Amino acid sequence: MLKYIVGIDVGGTSIKIGIFDLNVILLKKWDIPTNSSESGKYILEDIYKSLAHKIEDFDEVLGFGFGVPGPIINGMVFQCVNLGWKNYDLIGAFSKFINNPYILVANDANLATLGETTMGAARGYKNSALLTLGTGVGGGIVTDGNIIGGAHGSAGEIGHLQVIREFGRSCNCGNTGCLETVASATGIKKTYLEISKQSNIESSLKQFENPSAKAIIDAAKHGDLIATLVVENFTYYVAYACHVLSVTTNPDIIIIGGGVSKAGKYILNKIESHFRKFSYKPVRNTKIVLAELGNDAGIYGAAALVKNHG
Amino acid sequence: MLKYIVGIDVGGTSIKIGIFDLNVILLKKWDIPTNSSESGKYILEDIYKSLAHKIEDFDEVLGFGFGVPGPIINGMVFQCVNLGWKNYDLIGAFSKFINNPYILVANDANLATLGETTMGAARGYKNSALLTLGTGVGGGIVTDGNIIGGAHGSAGEIGHLQVIREFGRSCNCGNTGCLETVASATGIKKTYLEISKQSNIESSLKQFENPSAKAIIDAAKHGDLIATLVVENFTYYVAYACHVLSVTTNPDIIIIGGGVSKAGKYILNKIESHFRKFSYKPVRNTKIVLAELGNDAGIYGAAALVKNHG
Repeated sequence: MLKYIVGIDVGGTSIKIGIFDLNVILLKKWDIPTNSSESGKYILEDIYKSLAHKIEDFDEVLGFGFGVPGPIINGMVFQCVNLGWKNYDLIGAFSKFINNPYILVANDANLATLGETTMGAARGYKNSALLTLGTGVGGGIVTDGNIIGGAHGSAGEIGHLQVIREFGRSCNCGNTGCLETVASATGIKKTYLEISKQSNIESSLKQFENPSAKAIIDAAKHGDLIATLVVENFTYYVAYACHVLSVTTNPDIIIIGGGVSKAGKYILNKIESHFRKFSYKPVRNTKIVLAELGNDAGIYGAAALVKNHG
Repeated sequence: MLKYIVGIDVGGTSIKIGIFDLNVILLKKWDIPTNSSESGKYILEDIYKSLAHKIEDFDEVLGFGFGVPGPIINGMVFQCVNLGWKNYDLIGAFSKFINNPYILVANDANLATLGETTMGAARGYKNSALLTLGTGVGGGIVTDGNIIGGAHGSAGEIGHLQVIREFGRSCNCGNTGCLETVASATGIKKTYLEISKQSNIESSLKQFENPSAKAIIDAAKHGDLIATLVVENFTYYVAYACHVLSVTTNPDIIIIGGGVSKAGKYILNKIESHFRKFSYKPVRNTKIVLAELGNDAGIYGAAALVKNHG
């Protein structure tokens, strides 16, 4: 009898594995380290061995969902630099260990969006989008309950929305002025250093050589003027990204996740306040909320992918 | 035996009706005038009567697709100012004339996108977007072969993407700086008048008091400097909208339609050239093409909607 769904989130340093019931309720979760040596050829075997210790009867598993940190094109892993995978047939490779009709794979940020939409901050909604503000800026879009993958696996790559069209900072993607260059933790630190250098205003942050994004946001919460300018700057650009989402896929709800979002309501209110000012009127009431599932969003989404298709 | 699909595009001044075979090949098309008096209560009856003259046996019709100029929310026509409809149950109302399980309704711009994707410029692709540059700027998005409607029926409202964030022109929507304010025929004329007033450069257009968008683009084709500046300006913003689409839903192909697109390859090449410069690298090769179905895109899309669901 079918009892379980397995959700797997393959990261560059560790792999999260979750066993869920058929309603995507998490029953058990654990991590294993990622062995990316020899073009990542041991990764799936490690996952299989780890699962074999926890699951007695693989016939009780409806399916296995995988999230990977790279684009998926036509079911193939196009490239995952951190894992050593390139044009990798994950589904075929994992089928050698376990014969199951529902071995599915999707991009990890897209699955995090599906996870938050199924069981997290956007549960009950069919149209959503996620923006994760972390070391970089990622995203994903769900419409009518399904992930949008896109032609090149680049749907939801909202971190590479060009928000500054002239004289923007260089981005890792090779462009300039991407949202990621201003709204990631790294971007926030750079904005602070730029404003700080150009100004004689007193700031509680000047005691630190290179304050973290968290320290900057905390200082803003306590009224530090330079830190407040930095926060106004990046929340404005995040709000612009929300505007872009609202006139393209028009989600019911936009979820803000990632490390930067841990600053909570303070950040959320700033993003909302900017968004309400310039969003297209018919979508001005789009909900904007904080993510709820943290690092588990990916395994929830991987399990939800199986549930949607199984 | 099922033989036909009917596609209907309800516009403010006329209603286009098409009879298609089950493969969405157009067999016959005609127009009737729109009678929007008394809150549009005669519109569906007029359509029914017109159909009854052309179709002998309604049992041979798989279904009826309707495109309307307004947002659809949960199957209801939310508002069509030109038709007098508000919170209108079109499906229920048309069912009183013809009993058929596939009476379907969608926004007209979204249906035009589906039409071009099924039988026009983007046939063969599953992920597409349409930008129509006309009196206003409209749009639609198709992913995995289906229209994205959005939470408020505002998906694909790319005409109201704010492309100028400060000191932009007022838009009919109540905001400022929308794509429509610079890339519609009206916007193009305004840009010409602004540049023209501020400059002493000779222009072949100065003989006209208020040149049309077509005259401006034609002058640019012949090397007129002011007209060329105007064309560079609006094609840049259209390219920016293509960039926005490419990092949100990541279409295989973007279709440029509407009256302004009749300027053809000249405009298309400018849009492409801007787009290739600042688009996110993994999507830099996204195809950009001219629409093919003209004013028939809506009826094709309405028929395709029935085919997809029937």
